[in-house]
Amino acid sequence: MDSSTIASDYPRRLLLGPGPSNAHPRVLAALARPLLGHLDPLFVELMEETKSLLRTVFATANALTFPISGTGSAGMEACLVNLLEEGDEAVIAVNGEFGRRMTDIVERAGATVVAVEVPWGRPVLPDDVKSGLARATRPKLVAVVHAETSTGASSPIAEIAPVVRDSGALFVVDSVTSLAGMPVRVDEWGIDACYSGTQKCLSCPPGLSPVTFSPRALESIRGRKSKVRSWYLDVTMIERYWGAERVYHHTAPISMNFALAEALRMVVEEGLDARFARHRANHRALAAGLEALGFGFVVDAPYRLPMLNAVTLPAGVEEAPLRRRLLDDFSIEVGGGLGPFRGKIWRIGLMGESCRAANVLALLGALEDMLPAAGASVEPGRAIAAAEAAYGTVAGRE
Amino acid sequence: MDSSTIASDYPRRLLLGPGPSNAHPRVLAALARPLLGHLDPLFVELMEETKSLLRTVFATANALTFPISGTGSAGMEACLVNLLEEGDEAVIAVNGEFGRRMTDIVERAGATVVAVEVPWGRPVLPDDVKSGLARATRPKLVAVVHAETSTGASSPIAEIAPVVRDSGALFVVDSVTSLAGMPVRVDEWGIDACYSGTQKCLSCPPGLSPVTFSPRALESIRGRKSKVRSWYLDVTMIERYWGAERVYHHTAPISMNFALAEALRMVVEEGLDARFARHRANHRALAAGLEALGFGFVVDAPYRLPMLNAVTLPAGVEEAPLRRRLLDDFSIEVGGGLGPFRGKIWRIGLMGESCRAANVLALLGALEDMLPAAGASVEPGRAIAAAEAAYGTVAGRE
Repeated sequence: MDSSTIASDYPRRLLLGPGPSNAHPRVLAALARPLLGHLDPLFVELMEETKSLLRTVFATANALTFPISGTGSAGMEACLVNLLEEGDEAVIAVNGEFGRRMTDIVERAGATVVAVEVPWGRPVLPDDVKSGLARATRPKLVAVVHAETSTGASSPIAEIAPVVRDSGALFVVDSVTSLAGMPVRVDEWGIDACYSGTQKCLSCPPGLSPVTFSPRALESIRGRKSKVRSWYLDVTMIERYWGAERVYHHTAPISMNFALAEALRMVVEEGLDARFARHRANHRALAAGLEALGFGFVVDAPYRLPMLNAVTLPAGVEEAPLRRRLLDDFSIEVGGGLGPFRGKIWRIGLMGESCRAANVLALLGALEDMLPAAGASVEPGRAIAAAEAAYGTVAGRE
Repeated sequence: MDSSTIASDYPRRLLLGPGPSNAHPRVLAALARPLLGHLDPLFVELMEETKSLLRTVFATANALTFPISGTGSAGMEACLVNLLEEGDEAVIAVNGEFGRRMTDIVERAGATVVAVEVPWGRPVLPDDVKSGLARATRPKLVAVVHAETSTGASSPIAEIAPVVRDSGALFVVDSVTSLAGMPVRVDEWGIDACYSGTQKCLSCPPGLSPVTFSPRALESIRGRKSKVRSWYLDVTMIERYWGAERVYHHTAPISMNFALAEALRMVVEEGLDARFARHRANHRALAAGLEALGFGFVVDAPYRLPMLNAVTLPAGVEEAPLRRRLLDDFSIEVGGGLGPFRGKIWRIGLMGESCRAANVLALLGALEDMLPAAGASVEPGRAIAAAEAAYGTVAGRE
């Protein structure tokens, strides 16, 4: 097998899974720029620009706002292991895979978990957090996933925030899937540590995890009695590299940072509000089309994420073979289910660059084409018409 | 400031520092390829190819050979935290910054360090390791940095290996700077865990850390009594994603993996022996030229790394202003010193794609040009002539 063939022959994929989403050609071009050294004055300038752009996207004034050199899960670990020490207690809301993952990380950090178990597919609500806090003795932090990528549920962070604030605990929020696709207001909501991923609504390839820490979180980290368990993710050291001192810690992933800066510029150029509106409009159209085809939503309407649609398939249709045909015949990727949802649902992402009306219609059209052979009855044109109706005006389509 | 200007206006840098090195256009082009999903069959195929290419480069048959989704320091942490549990003992050779870093990571893992302190600039020798083992009670592992990037010293891993083997401890080797620039023979030398970085002699941008674990290391990991302290770096879980099961762990940095595969293909196309010879030839020429200009080597000749030259400057020349002028006037980056060497030495890298005769001559020419104004007397043409003589034949230049 000629290796250069492998390198050039990939088909273009329309990425409508739970991430990565498609990256814009501008972002891919940024990736391919010739390298700079990681202490080059020009790279330092890019780091400053990136921090500033991230503050805009997180809606925060936090000085300590930068990308962790790893994927979203590294950001999750960074937030938790920096804030927790052995013997600390953490209230973790678990309504899907990523909440569950947090409990695992907290235990590895030597802290005690008070888990608030919420059925998969349901949001975490203020009362859930209250009940967790009631069972805790001296909670150091409360952590909630804003947009549960495994279930498509959106938890109302703004409503949960006062409950956490009253408890005096630090508030950690996972915005991996929500950031830049729906409002994430770190300062207004009083979030103390927030992490995200690049490959969802930011539409940058996976590899970095933007994080932000409030002054209160930083104070807590500075007051630690023990070293952070991870050297690589120790924010007290990374801060000296990303801050004014520029003390070498690890070599930043230069190219990925080029791409992230470009992706962030595109977010700011579009405007956050316009971007959120685009995600809502395309979600509504997709939802209308999917329901016309017999798909059902896992999550109740008020708590559905715009960028991640968790859906059951029409009666009698097996998910895996249809998903594979969608990839092979149409080069469209959607995601399968995780954990209890494995084999039962699809996760259809409309994130960042992937979130376009043309993509919504492409997916609905492909499904209309494939479903009859998969055993579902489909009225030709109905899904597309339902989507069109949901868009309402041409202005709604982007 | 127009952000699109920032994106396009970077000058091309000749990267002759301690890493990153310059990436070949083929590697940059691979970075810019449209994304695939991280569970796409085509990406799975690329993962298999990558593992196979990495085995060739590490000279190993280890099944568990793959890139960690972080930079070299993440690979260091991955090797140490997977092998160590609370209460374990580790003998760590410290002859520079990266040995010191290992002691920090080992302590964070809850294990005890027996540090073998060796003066910066000296290699770690078998007797050093023997003395460390003599002070240890029940060492779980011995760790040595093959190529100390902070000092330019090469430690004779092949000679140290039998000492470690006799002790029964696992052998961990840092090959961040050595891999693909000088022989690293994991199986022949009996290394149990070895990690590297992509941005040195592999000439792929920074962001991934190739690692390999021997069956004995894997057995030790599987026999752990406690969970690995890092979720993100837990090899028992990552193995299920990079292995046959393809169980989702974290989203791999897709684009970086495209680039790494292409960089590895280029290493294998060139051939490891040819690549090592190229690094030696260019090192000899650079060394001859630098000595003709009054630079001195930190490390004794038999232990000098070919790809990382740690040198003192000609008498009376201040390092920082000259280094800045080299960057500003010639767009050539070299590195300064770390720790005790800060402000005292330069670290000149000739790694991977940066390791070319044209680059050696470009650097020597620039130095000849700049040194007189910096206060050193230079005989015009002498450095270039010395380098030319060291190359000997035209065939030696690549």
